[in-house]
Amino acid sequence: MIKARIVVTLKNGVLDPQGKAIGGALGHLGFDGVDEVRQGKVFDLQLDGDDKTATEKRLSEMCEKLLANTVIENYTISID
Amino acid sequence: MIKARIVVTLKNGVLDPQGKAIGGALGHLGFDGVDEVRQGKVFDLQLDGDDKTATEKRLSEMCEKLLANTVIENYTISID
Repeated sequence: MIKARIVVTLKNGVLDPQGKAIGGALGHLGFDGVDEVRQGKVFDLQLDGDDKTATEKRLSEMCEKLLANTVIENYTISID
Repeated sequence: MIKARIVVTLKNGVLDPQGKAIGGALGHLGFDGVDEVRQGKVFDLQLDGDDKTATEKRLSEMCEKLLANTVIENYTISID
């Protein structure tokens, strides 16, 4: 069993309306000094097998095919 | 300027239909051996100031008030 975490975030320069809305909401709640908020996704996976190298390669394929829109998003993979 | 990352994930035992759907989709794409997928949110923030302790306290308040539903979600805060 392998545990892995994938974090998908917007590339720099890509507009993040959701992040902007959250930043605004934080301001309305009285949290000043928040310059920027950018929201992304995190996936925690449990996978069969124990070959970390092979698993990392498969996780990358999963990102390329489904979990990330690589035109506008970056992804990082970390394996426990 | 302080940079921080907040990761919000579902508590153990809380059903994650989105994660289940993603796991199913990965299976249809030919990725077998994926036992579990759980999806969460990540927030990257840039904040004024340089007092990390005070900032961590404010970030925790932000989570409690807006960024996380603490009934069903956990959050972790990491400051660069």
